[in-house]
Amino acid sequence: MVNQPIATTPDPPYYAVVFTSRHSGDDFEGYAAMAARMMELAAEQPGFLGVETARRDDGVGITVSYWADEASIRAWHDVAEHRAAQERGKQQWYPQWRVRVCKVEREYGTPFDK
Amino acid sequence: MVNQPIATTPDPPYYAVVFTSRHSGDDFEGYAAMAARMMELAAEQPGFLGVETARRDDGVGITVSYWADEASIRAWHDVAEHRAAQERGKQQWYPQWRVRVCKVEREYGTPFDK
Repeated sequence: MVNQPIATTPDPPYYAVVFTSRHSGDDFEGYAAMAARMMELAAEQPGFLGVETARRDDGVGITVSYWADEASIRAWHDVAEHRAAQERGKQQWYPQWRVRVCKVEREYGTPFDK
Repeated sequence: MVNQPIATTPDPPYYAVVFTSRHSGDDFEGYAAMAARMMELAAEQPGFLGVETARRDDGVGITVSYWADEASIRAWHDVAEHRAAQERGKQQWYPQWRVRVCKVEREYGTPFDK
């Protein structure tokens, strides 16, 4: 489910966390392992609904994770292993980044994958 | 301003439109021209705050545009040239896509570019 290009989400309302970043290019292999682990860990959290991610060749990336409510977002933020990853991200990988916490109000598009 | 990796947005609340898609790979040059034109046209619309975009090598892309309010999102949706681009996108370029309209409630990160 984590590897779907487009997350299968329930009817709104639910929450989205938009994480936009510019990557330093440093230790891309270590970064990829960390990112994969965080995807796996996020998917185990209560309230996790799905995730979508894309990164350009110039290092700019957008990851959108979807959550049942604000409480699950705050809980995920504080998971110890995720905290450590955030710290390493700030120090080593992301000279610029922004997190936006959003309430999804409506959506439309092609049918979801089964 | 349209080319900033991370959009310079005002204090919340404001709106985000998350457009996730899988690209067919068809006529990528025509697509790139259309996408650039839509970025330019969006930036001229009332209520436009900024845009961020990334696409993976496998064709999955995420574009997040930011808007002052729901009314500006609906107005942009209905701009004739944008309508035509949406139609062409559905027919030719996007076998899978989803639009999510979200209210940004809070945000944090590194300082914005000046």
